[in-house]
Amino acid sequence: MNGITMNPIGVIHTPFTEPKGTPIQPRRAGGAAGTVEVYSQFVRGLVDLDGFSHIVLLYCFHLSSGYDLMVTPYLDKQLRGLFATRTPRRPNPIGLSIVRLEQIKGNILHVRGVDIIDGTPLLDIKPYVPEVDSAEEIRIGWLTGKERDSGDHLADERFHE
Amino acid sequence: MNGITMNPIGVIHTPFTEPKGTPIQPRRAGGAAGTVEVYSQFVRGLVDLDGFSHIVLLYCFHLSSGYDLMVTPYLDKQLRGLFATRTPRRPNPIGLSIVRLEQIKGNILHVRGVDIIDGTPLLDIKPYVPEVDSAEEIRIGWLTGKERDSGDHLADERFHE
Repeated sequence: MNGITMNPIGVIHTPFTEPKGTPIQPRRAGGAAGTVEVYSQFVRGLVDLDGFSHIVLLYCFHLSSGYDLMVTPYLDKQLRGLFATRTPRRPNPIGLSIVRLEQIKGNILHVRGVDIIDGTPLLDIKPYVPEVDSAEEIRIGWLTGKERDSGDHLADERFHE
Repeated sequence: MNGITMNPIGVIHTPFTEPKGTPIQPRRAGGAAGTVEVYSQFVRGLVDLDGFSHIVLLYCFHLSSGYDLMVTPYLDKQLRGLFATRTPRRPNPIGLSIVRLEQIKGNILHVRGVDIIDGTPLLDIKPYVPEVDSAEEIRIGWLTGKERDSGDHLADERFHE
């Protein structure tokens, strides 16, 4: 299988108009509010979504192009393998964020905790259901000790062109 | 932006050769083992991934075609909005699973907890980092009381053609 074509089902609106200054993870977004505009032909598919406190947004990193297999992540000073990072510059530039769903009004979802650039094309919405039991041991590799250390991490321009 | 083209970076191998009988969520997969074959040109991007206990797989629901905006999910008897479900038949048929990473040997990732059909095209790998604080209240809408009630849910054929 080659060349799977994706078409946006909507667009994500946020306060972040350029890569520089955009929070690099939802939990660092300080609860930044945004809206998800779902194109009218898909609105019926939003039925029942309002029962979920959190949703998964899949979107296209539309400002990124190309990729390197080794990258220096925002939170680190060492080169790391691309797939061990969340860099937007990926072979398939799909972004994933879990956001808090506050309200649905027609085709507009009001969400909180966005780490996404304004104007980002939306590819999919899924209900968020915790999939890893809290009893499971979770290791986060090179992110250990970096991931929770501050609410103050914002992107610079290294991953966008 | 229209027509974003995705190309597989690998293929997922599992014991599930047809939609019928495939676990419908990773936590229901009973720890089913599988392998993720990453195409050789991307192998260098796997560096550092072995420090993570869990990884996010994004893949294409390659056996699905078309979609309905209202669907009857496996766990329910009522029609629900497409985006409030994980049905494979979606406008952009991207699947998302969090699996346990057991070992990496060259370009092969040994994983556990797969709910994916054998031969599924891989689109992306991301490190899994818990993004929703355990202190946060999580509501799961129509899935409440259905989601944890059994380890015995397997797919039937309704979502594949």
